[in-house]
Amino acid sequence: MDILDLIRSRRSIRMFSSRSVEGQKLDELLEAAKWAPSAGNMQARDFILVREQKTKEEIAKAALNQGFISEAPLVIIACANKRKSSKKYGSRGESLYSIQDATIAVQNILLVAHSIALGSCWVGAFDEEKVKEILEIPEGVRPIAIVPIGYPAEDPTPPTRRIDVHEEGW
Amino acid sequence: MDILDLIRSRRSIRMFSSRSVEGQKLDELLEAAKWAPSAGNMQARDFILVREQKTKEEIAKAALNQGFISEAPLVIIACANKRKSSKKYGSRGESLYSIQDATIAVQNILLVAHSIALGSCWVGAFDEEKVKEILEIPEGVRPIAIVPIGYPAEDPTPPTRRIDVHEEGW
Repeated sequence: MDILDLIRSRRSIRMFSSRSVEGQKLDELLEAAKWAPSAGNMQARDFILVREQKTKEEIAKAALNQGFISEAPLVIIACANKRKSSKKYGSRGESLYSIQDATIAVQNILLVAHSIALGSCWVGAFDEEKVKEILEIPEGVRPIAIVPIGYPAEDPTPPTRRIDVHEEGW
Repeated sequence: MDILDLIRSRRSIRMFSSRSVEGQKLDELLEAAKWAPSAGNMQARDFILVREQKTKEEIAKAALNQGFISEAPLVIIACANKRKSSKKYGSRGESLYSIQDATIAVQNILLVAHSIALGSCWVGAFDEEKVKEILEIPEGVRPIAIVPIGYPAEDPTPPTRRIDVHEEGW
């Protein structure tokens, strides 16, 4: 599929079949994350893979009780590694580049997931401190997205979209 | 090309030919941005297209004198629109979601650019206040990436990459 068609046809999936994600497919998702660009190639991002049911349920609870998270066979938690980025870039690395490094990698994961028939959803609404506690994420590292992944059991309608473009200046 | 091959083969391009970017290709880049996911579909992002030489030179200067920016036929400045995001999400929208909304859209632009033979580069090092002044970007909107785009006049070597993955917890 053409990349633009891939981008347009990807939907947020919140219902998953019970089929697990094959190891080879997981490798492809991680390869996509690995090749995401990052500020100064610092790759200030980390990924936590969660498959244990109990942990998934705790994460779902920390994500304002979004129960569908625990029904996905695989949950990837993407983290902005402020420590890695600040070594080279100080506070701009902490508050911007590390977030971008992790965010770009997640988008690559979502796109590749869709291309190999997996569904995923970007979850941004969660209690960061609780997620850090559940996953023992150290200081200086910030979870910035929870990404449940599995085979889709729904086919959502596309949302409306717009593009806000300014010519030569605001 | 397979999406994973596309992701792997994309490089940061800092040398451009003088050939301009066709309108239809620009439309494809904006379409890619338009279909990027965003927190709560708030699409808290704006894009400024710059083609005027004088403006490009001012932006290059504000980006720590990275002169190659002014040599690209097209420069897109991606902005996190904190105002749009904060309406629904308050401070989390301002400091996280709006940055992510804009960042995801930029990654879509980079990937589609590469798929249609264009080169681009993510520039994150710049003086935000100066860029806001040059482009008359209002308060509550933050430029988060400068993206020069054009036909590549170089073929860079891939950088080394790694992936930091943790199982079930840090």
